Amino acid sequence: MKGKLYGIGVGPGDPELLTLKAKRLIEECDIVAVPVKKEGEDSVALNIAKGAVKIPEEKIQEIVFTMAKDKTKREACRQAAAEEIMKLLDEGKSIAMLALGDIGIYSTYAYVHKRLLKEGYDVEMVSGIPSFCAGASKAGISIVEGNEGFGVIPSLKGIDQVEKTLGVFDNLVIMKVGSHVKEVYDLLVERGMENNALIISNVGMDGEYVGPLIPDREYGYFTTMIIKSEM
Amino acid sequence: MKGKLYGIGVGPGDPELLTLKAKRLIEECDIVAVPVKKEGEDSVALNIAKGAVKIPEEKIQEIVFTMAKDKTKREACRQAAAEEIMKLLDEGKSIAMLALGDIGIYSTYAYVHKRLLKEGYDVEMVSGIPSFCAGASKAGISIVEGNEGFGVIPSLKGIDQVEKTLGVFDNLVIMKVGSHVKEVYDLLVERGMENNALIISNVGMDGEYVGPLIPDREYGYFTTMIIKSEM
Repeated sequence: MKGKLYGIGVGPGDPELLTLKAKRLIEECDIVAVPVKKEGEDSVALNIAKGAVKIPEEKIQEIVFTMAKDKTKREACRQAAAEEIMKLLDEGKSIAMLALGDIGIYSTYAYVHKRLLKEGYDVEMVSGIPSFCAGASKAGISIVEGNEGFGVIPSLKGIDQVEKTLGVFDNLVIMKVGSHVKEVYDLLVERGMENNALIISNVGMDGEYVGPLIPDREYGYFTTMIIKSEM
Repeated sequence: MKGKLYGIGVGPGDPELLTLKAKRLIEECDIVAVPVKKEGEDSVALNIAKGAVKIPEEKIQEIVFTMAKDKTKREACRQAAAEEIMKLLDEGKSIAMLALGDIGIYSTYAYVHKRLLKEGYDVEMVSGIPSFCAGASKAGISIVEGNEGFGVIPSLKGIDQVEKTLGVFDNLVIMKVGSHVKEVYDLLVERGMENNALIISNVGMDGEYVGPLIPDREYGYFTTMIIKSEM
């Protein structure tokens, strides 16, 4: 019988934020598949999972997803990854494939899921805590209350995106905003909202910062900003 | 010494979607506080937690949050709730207060957290899986991929809200959309997007439905719609 593939969100960092289901499946599956940009790379998702579950080294299988700029290369790499996984499933192996945060939010796993679904394989997505939820909790604030709405953008493509969103939503989450913090700050000053932003940066890493937006500070790659109409 | 209050998201339904941290804290705390609309009410959040953790009845403490339309009544009830919790913390009790989904997304807990923070109490938010994440996983789709953004609205206040949001974001989550499904469908038809919506309704309850939008079907209260620019 063919094996089953589980795409599993391990949350944004704290191993205790794994779900009971994620822990059980990582323990039970024959293989723990770990997406990496290149072979031998240290995987953040794997390290999080290892903090909660003892994973024998022989169960771990790296799956390479290149971040090459060339689209053809990326596509070929994704297909190879899907085929590698199908081969293991054909051998009857059950697979837990890890992803940071939630499995349905900006996850590399999506491609494999779609491809395998189309090929008739048994696949299941298992939710994890999204980074912006954990960040807001860490900062001790709500993302949304009552009748408010919120928007999430993965990184700042242009300041007009922030303006447009603030026209529609009360609350905005900008992920990977590190190098654009000052730019957003200037817009917030224009709107009299400079005290309505909160920064969650490099949590659990060097240069951790959780607090109000300080415009002249340097922020790392893993920086999320939450802008709220009411703080 | 004063006790500590933990606001804990238990996820949207499946007890296995509790985090390891939520489970541990519910086990360790002296009191499990359960928000209810009126005394003796069956609590969905408590039932979810009970599915994962054995909770002795004597640890359970109902905290009433009225849904009365009168704002003064609601405010008085919230203050009474905060004072009840402060009294328990003053007695040195540690408290795990439960909420459905994530603790920072539309949670009753927010008011208590703010009030107690102001009064100098030790409080901590613990994330849970948001319902829209679990819903998308159940349906086997991503909410967002690559460079896309997404918006979340708690229920449909007007169809123009959907139009505006689709102008800014590639993806939109509408929670509690039950009685407005047909209205949204008509808008999607206008935009040639009628095949871009997915419904997750009454999961784990009577009338469960996870699949494409069927305009002439009846949907329950716990209905979420996910609209995607690319399906």
